[in-house]
Amino acid sequence: MTTTQPIDFWFDFSSPYGYLLAEKIDAVAAKYGRTVSWHPILLGIIFQATGSAPLTLQNPAKASYSLHDFARSARFMGLPYQHPTNFPLATQNAARGYYWLAGQDVGLAKQFALAAYRALFVDNRDISAPETVVEIATNLGVDRSSLETALQTPEIKARLKNEVDAALQAGVFGSPHVLIDGEPFFGADRLPQIEQWLKTGGF
Amino acid sequence: MTTTQPIDFWFDFSSPYGYLLAEKIDAVAAKYGRTVSWHPILLGIIFQATGSAPLTLQNPAKASYSLHDFARSARFMGLPYQHPTNFPLATQNAARGYYWLAGQDVGLAKQFALAAYRALFVDNRDISAPETVVEIATNLGVDRSSLETALQTPEIKARLKNEVDAALQAGVFGSPHVLIDGEPFFGADRLPQIEQWLKTGGF
Repeated sequence: MTTTQPIDFWFDFSSPYGYLLAEKIDAVAAKYGRTVSWHPILLGIIFQATGSAPLTLQNPAKASYSLHDFARSARFMGLPYQHPTNFPLATQNAARGYYWLAGQDVGLAKQFALAAYRALFVDNRDISAPETVVEIATNLGVDRSSLETALQTPEIKARLKNEVDAALQAGVFGSPHVLIDGEPFFGADRLPQIEQWLKTGGF
Repeated sequence: MTTTQPIDFWFDFSSPYGYLLAEKIDAVAAKYGRTVSWHPILLGIIFQATGSAPLTLQNPAKASYSLHDFARSARFMGLPYQHPTNFPLATQNAARGYYWLAGQDVGLAKQFALAAYRALFVDNRDISAPETVVEIATNLGVDRSSLETALQTPEIKARLKNEVDAALQAGVFGSPHVLIDGEPFFGADRLPQIEQWLKTGGF
């Protein structure tokens, strides 16, 4: 099967499994000649709309297991992981930063997204703070004052809101969520199925 | 690492992912010289205790995805799957049958468990009915009237209750749940991690 339609990848910057999949998805897609369109979303709004909750705020047994599984799944996938002190956390600044950067340079926006994820899940930095988001971007050569201004514009706020609405419309109920030619995959643990799907065109 | 401690495997007979893992777990364990102790439980009680709900009774987006994923995950694992008409369903008869059989012959009890799972998830049979459970067992050579009597004894009811209590004590919050030398794994999708853990003694 050949197609040029990008794969859609929805994630929240506070999602541990979103971080794990973000580190892998583009390389797996590229193996099969596909590109990936990244869509940061806000799980708070998704969970409110669907009546769900973060794993670590569900029952104590599931919360405790999830904390253990985040770190073990990272090791299994060969990635570093340190659970953040401030968790869960607000991610609208990181998401807005992503969309503003993506309007100029998608490659740079993805670099920023990975840097933000690593800041949170490897270096335990509080990326809910706009100044942290700005610092991560300026380390990649982004102009500080342009970004500071952009984070507060109605256009970028509307863009994020529209992306969250579109995610809900597409059936997204958590993070990460991947859509390949109409086929949905939820969770970093579906990466082997994603790869098999790309390899075979469906199974 | 060598150890003779059996791996614990908790599952509910109404759990699609429990069925998928039941088809694989003993063979994977045997590759690494390990045996598996099977523990059917009642998710209704586990969910009541932990404040959770079946995937197909959660929000519509997650329910719809889950139905799709049950079948796709089965195909990915090379197993047949047909979603049952009566679902979710009560499984205390199947669980009681398992424990009564296990008191006599664990191998036969596992054969019965797999036959009950296939009856439900391949042949769309309603295994909530005691007569279906009895028929599945008699097809394996089990004495009908002994089993019919056993399903109603206080001893076997207490055994199942104790197993559910022990599962909650062990941190079980869903199905399937596996414990290897103190390390918990939730979900059929953790089979690659289970195998890696058995192969390396932990990672």
